[in-house]
Amino acid sequence: MVTISYTPIGIIHTPFVKQSDTPIQGVFNPDCLGEVEVFPPYLDGIKDIAGFSHIFLVYHFHLAEGFSLVTKPFLDDEGKGIFSIRHFNRPNPIGISVVRLDQVKNNILTIGEVDIVDCTPLLDIKPYIPDFDIRSDVREGWYEHARNKTEYERNRGISRRPGDF
Amino acid sequence: MVTISYTPIGIIHTPFVKQSDTPIQGVFNPDCLGEVEVFPPYLDGIKDIAGFSHIFLVYHFHLAEGFSLVTKPFLDDEGKGIFSIRHFNRPNPIGISVVRLDQVKNNILTIGEVDIVDCTPLLDIKPYIPDFDIRSDVREGWYEHARNKTEYERNRGISRRPGDF
Repeated sequence: MVTISYTPIGIIHTPFVKQSDTPIQGVFNPDCLGEVEVFPPYLDGIKDIAGFSHIFLVYHFHLAEGFSLVTKPFLDDEGKGIFSIRHFNRPNPIGISVVRLDQVKNNILTIGEVDIVDCTPLLDIKPYIPDFDIRSDVREGWYEHARNKTEYERNRGISRRPGDF
Repeated sequence: MVTISYTPIGIIHTPFVKQSDTPIQGVFNPDCLGEVEVFPPYLDGIKDIAGFSHIFLVYHFHLAEGFSLVTKPFLDDEGKGIFSIRHFNRPNPIGISVVRLDQVKNNILTIGEVDIVDCTPLLDIKPYIPDFDIRSDVREGWYEHARNKTEYERNRGISRRPGDF
């Protein structure tokens, strides 16, 4: 079996030390701030990024522990196929998040709408471009019946800033 | 330096044998079809996926060759930071695409809006959920001036089906 290897290009600092404290989706927690530290050898790669209000972060779920192919998502009580949910315990524990880009200073990106646990290894950054990334007329499977549970997340009151790290 | 290793969970079959023939973004080419072959050990992981009209594919750009931290994107003539563009020659050559999910039959997903080269190793599948993944009031940096060039892509007439493989 082929193995594919990557080397982190940075690290993500957030107020969320434990998985259980981390918002399930950043969009519900606009006040959750964090910092992306891009390692110095990759500094030139963030040229032009300040023009974007939102970016994708692609990262390694470093606290993931194994996986089950059928798992309960956070917003439903019945097991779903792991590729139908966003749980971090997946065959390849890769996470993607759209975060808000608030500021760029040297090799530090200040970000908002953060749903990532502290010290997460960063694999890639990509610009968020609505022409490429937004789809309409979408069917959302099991989530269509679970959507109301996100109200709990919206009201969870998690609102921490880098000073709280 | 830490290395992170993944094992493909499937392979993506498309009509695009060369990078230069592959659409730059699938959304501009709704008739471009392909197939995701999920390897048998992961079959249970696609339970419930047929309920979703769109999915994220996370994959390895297996034809990528090195990278430059500043590179010209396909839609502009000036060099941009690699993390501000979507080019495949990146420090960690990971691709993400939103594709349309047309059919699920055993371990084969038929997909549309495909911008992926043939035989690409698949690392992960995630459901596309507008509540999580769509942002409004977005600034798009250099792309705001390059958007008109996507008209060329929209009119490129690439329209191939799996029978053309």
